[in-house]
This record gives sequence, C-alpha cells and structure tokens, in this order.
Amino acid sequence: MIAVLAGGVGAARFLQGLTKIVSPRDVTVIVNTGDDIDWYGLRISPDLDIITYTLAGIVDERRGWGLKDDTTHCLQGLDAYGWETWFRVGDRDLATHLYRTHRLRQGADLDKVTTEICKALNIRVRIIPMSNNFIQTSITTPNGAVNFQEYLVKRRMHDPVRGVQFKGIGRAKPAPGVVDSILRSERIVICPSNPIVSIGPIISLKGVKEALVDTDAKVVGVSPIIQGAPVKGPADRLLKGLNLEVSSFSVAKLYRSFLDVFVIDSKDEAEKPRIEGLGVKVVATKTLMETLEDKTRLAQVVLDV
Amino acid sequence: MIAVLAGGVGAARFLQGLTKIVSPRDVTVIVNTGDDIDWYGLRISPDLDIITYTLAGIVDERRGWGLKDDTTHCLQGLDAYGWETWFRVGDRDLATHLYRTHRLRQGADLDKVTTEICKALNIRVRIIPMSNNFIQTSITTPNGAVNFQEYLVKRRMHDPVRGVQFKGIGRAKPAPGVVDSILRSERIVICPSNPIVSIGPIISLKGVKEALVDTDAKVVGVSPIIQGAPVKGPADRLLKGLNLEVSSFSVAKLYRSFLDVFVIDSKDEAEKPRIEGLGVKVVATKTLMETLEDKTRLAQVVLDV
Repeated sequence: MIAVLAGGVGAARFLQGLTKIVSPRDVTVIVNTGDDIDWYGLRISPDLDIITYTLAGIVDERRGWGLKDDTTHCLQGLDAYGWETWFRVGDRDLATHLYRTHRLRQGADLDKVTTEICKALNIRVRIIPMSNNFIQTSITTPNGAVNFQEYLVKRRMHDPVRGVQFKGIGRAKPAPGVVDSILRSERIVICPSNPIVSIGPIISLKGVKEALVDTDAKVVGVSPIIQGAPVKGPADRLLKGLNLEVSSFSVAKLYRSFLDVFVIDSKDEAEKPRIEGLGVKVVATKTLMETLEDKTRLAQVVLDV
Repeated sequence: MIAVLAGGVGAARFLQGLTKIVSPRDVTVIVNTGDDIDWYGLRISPDLDIITYTLAGIVDERRGWGLKDDTTHCLQGLDAYGWETWFRVGDRDLATHLYRTHRLRQGADLDKVTTEICKALNIRVRIIPMSNNFIQTSITTPNGAVNFQEYLVKRRMHDPVRGVQFKGIGRAKPAPGVVDSILRSERIVICPSNPIVSIGPIISLKGVKEALVDTDAKVVGVSPIIQGAPVKGPADRLLKGLNLEVSSFSVAKLYRSFLDVFVIDSKDEAEKPRIEGLGVKVVATKTLMETLEDKTRLAQVVLDV
C-alpha cells in the first residue's frame, strides 16, 4: 500500500505515472483542501477536482485543471448578472460543485461525497480529502488577508506575501483514513506540490506530522523546485514571503522531521550535500513531467529508492 | 398603467404583443410562483424565468421556455453523478438559478432578486413575483401528492388528478406591489394562463381576489381554452380532475367575482350566452398566438374592450 500526500496539478501528473505502474487499488491519495472556496454558495475543492478529473482521464491536460472541451455558458450568464468570473468554472465542471454542495447541505461529509464522485467517474484509486472540516488558506498581503484562490487566480500572485494562514485548521480533524493510511502503508509519497499551501495544510492537521514521523513506511518526497523555481504556481513567492530560500534544500528542511528520501532534479545535484546534511537521503533524476514516460519513470524512481 | 396576472408560456407570448403596443414602463406583471421548485438546492422559478427570458428576447421560442442555443453540459455531468435530469436546466439558464439561490440565501427577497435579474437583462416591464414566500403547487394523484413540476415534466401529466394544493399559501403574503398595482391600474389583464395552477395561486393569496373585486380598473381575461382544450399544458386535466368542465365558460366561472370582460376564441362564440349569463361581457376573436402579429392584435383587442 502506498499513501500519497497531494496538492493539485503536480500531484495529479505524478499520480498519472504512479497508477500506470502499480495497481490503483493499492494507492490512497490524501488531498489538500486548504484551497477550497465558497463560490457564490457553491463549495469548490480545486485540488480534489484536479486529482479526480486527471485520474478519470477527463482533465483539460493543457491547463492541468478543469474538464477538457468544457464550455463556460453559465459563467457568461453570471457575468451578465454582475458576478465576478475570474474563477473559471466550466459548465460540466459545475456539476461536480452542485453535486458536492448539495450533498454537503444534506449532511454528508466531504470524504463520503468524494468517494461518490470517484465512483461515478470510475476512479479506482482511493481519494480522501485531508479533512472533512472547511479550511481556507489565506494569504496575508500588505493590503490585508485574501483567500488563496483570490491571491492565485484573481490577483495573479502579484501581491507581496507577508504570511500564510490556514483558517479553521486549529479546530479541524484529519478525515477518517488519513492517519490510518499513513501508519499502515509501506511507502508514503510527498508529491511535487507546493510545500506551503498544498502539503503545508495537510501536515498542519492534528496528528498527521506525528503519523509521518511514527510510520514504519519509507517517506519519499519529490521536490517541486527545479533550479530555484517551481514548475508551476506560487511556491517561490510563498517561500520568499516567509523568508525562506527557494530551493529543494529549503523544502527538505520543512519536511526533515519525517522525510527519509528526497527526489530532486538532476540540475540541482549540487544541493545534495546540504540536504543530506539534514539526515535526508537524496536521489537526483529528471523531475520535470512533460510526457507520460516522464511521469511513469519518476514514479518508478520513487518506488525504487 | 396596466397590471397583468401571468403564468408561463401563454402569458409570455401575450406580453410580447402587449409590450409592442404600450410602453413597457406602463406594465406591471404579477407572476405565479406556485410552480417554483427546489432543484438539488437551487431555487427555480419557471414562470418568472419564462416571462423574463421572453421579454428579454432570449427565450427558446420553439419550446417557450429556457434559453435559445443553450447547452446542457452541466446536466450531463449531473446525470453521471446519478441525479435525475428530467428537469431540463440549461447551462446559461443555470446562471439565473445560481444567482437567485445565492441572493435568497444572502437574505434578499425574491422580488428584489427578480428586479436585479430584470435589470441585468434590460427588461423595462416591471415584473413582480406573486409572493416572496415559497409556495409549492402539489398535485394529488392516486399515488399520492407530487410536486407540480414532477407531475408536469417527469410524469408528463399521466397521473389522474384528484386535487390541487398550494403548499404554504395560507401563511404567504402577496409581494410588495401586487395588491397596489391591482388597485392603481386602469386595466387588469388575466393572461391566457392555466386557471388552476397559474392564475389560481395568485388569486388565492390573501387580499388579491379582494383587490381584483375592489379595483376601479376594468378586469379583462383571455381564455386559455379553445374548443375544449388548452393551447398548452395540463389545464384540461386539472379542470377535469376538479370535476370542472373544460371550457371558457368554466374558466369564466372561476373568475366571475372580478372579471368584467372575457376574451374567448372565435371558435367558441357559442359559449358567449352562457358566459354573459355570469354577468361577464364577452369578446370573441382569434386567441391562438402563433405570430407576433397574432400577439399584438390580441393585446390590442384586450386594450380596446
């Protein structure tokens, strides 16, 4: 059994490779929900959607999120009613948000709803939201705190980052199966996801970091940083905003209490001694996932270490 | 000033004609909301939507409801999640339901939300929902009570009708402006709408029938029945189910306490003496509205009587 801690696009791409070389039934994915947003009354879980759409083979591969060939007629209608439409919700995509929102309002927990969605999309991997509680990542900027999606999508990461908060994390519990799957797996993978806002919320949940430290499983991380820059997203801005170096070493330091092996890009091989100085074994390989071959090869490296 | 009591498609077609020959600003439309339905957490007001879409020139003219050239990608997605999709919600149409639902949840009243939607769609006619309270028409069948939309759309009017109930009508109040506009107008028009489930709920609201009786305005109705059959919808089944004759005379009897003039189809001229026996003046003309000319001509007849 393999437990995977996942954010959005980078994790989804890694999982495409992993599920080609191991049985999907042996994989449990614990997905960040700190990116969740209440969008005009609809509960949207971007990372869950990216992971499920990708594993179902229906994601818009070019963007990495949303559904391929989706339309935005509803969004155009909402624009006419004066709503902000920077959050690009497609028409078919909307079905997921309507379904999730209605089921939550009926009293179902997010993990149950996620299982239902996965079943409908024929996904055999087990996908668990990190928590059934609503947690919202908020970015502190010189102009005040903004919701992470607003920072990322609406403001296009332009604001200087002064801090990051996971609202609601204090009272939140990991969803059923999160701690268990970490303790019972033979291997844990920390995906090449944003260490601050994707992996950060998961390991900030009560008992998760402890489980990662306590588990007998080998914990293998894949660095999301190549040559001082993230492959996608605002990891560099967030690390800098928190006065951290933008490097694989810096990410390894965040994970050092539980990380056994860190897979970094070959281009960053020079960082190896510093990371090994943290007591973390290092494997250098190509971590950029452009083709399905890249993805499966990287997954194989993670399994082999 | 003209106040118009309206259901869905028949009323919308009449209003297309009326607004061609009088200033839209002089028209107040009081719309039935008994057809409203809570659709997986979204509040849908079919008659309001039919009227607003028609007056905005964006209705699907062939069906009489929904938006022209709309897609159903969201509905297809919901079908994949196992939801019933007999209620055909289009993607762009969905924007209206999302907007309405969210505004209602924010605490706005339905009349306010309706005004906002009309403004966004550049509608100059004043459209008021009959009530800000949620009223649901329910059809009693041998298999129990079913929501009107379920009876109409899902079950395609197959069930024998044993009775009709307007759930919530007892505690409901007419929306602000409903009684006022009836009392202050020079002419009231009862559209060629279903007398039981379209006009029925409006005149069942506290104070509405009294206002129709008390107003100095001439109250002119247009019969929805031609030669013993409704132009559209289940009026015949409902009248029969309530042991009423399916005829213009029968409809006139329902309206007799406030009706001054009834416009019936020329083909039903034979009914004239019976209706006039109720103390209601009768004008016979072509009431079937196939072309815009039909609509404006009928509206002119209603204004001229």
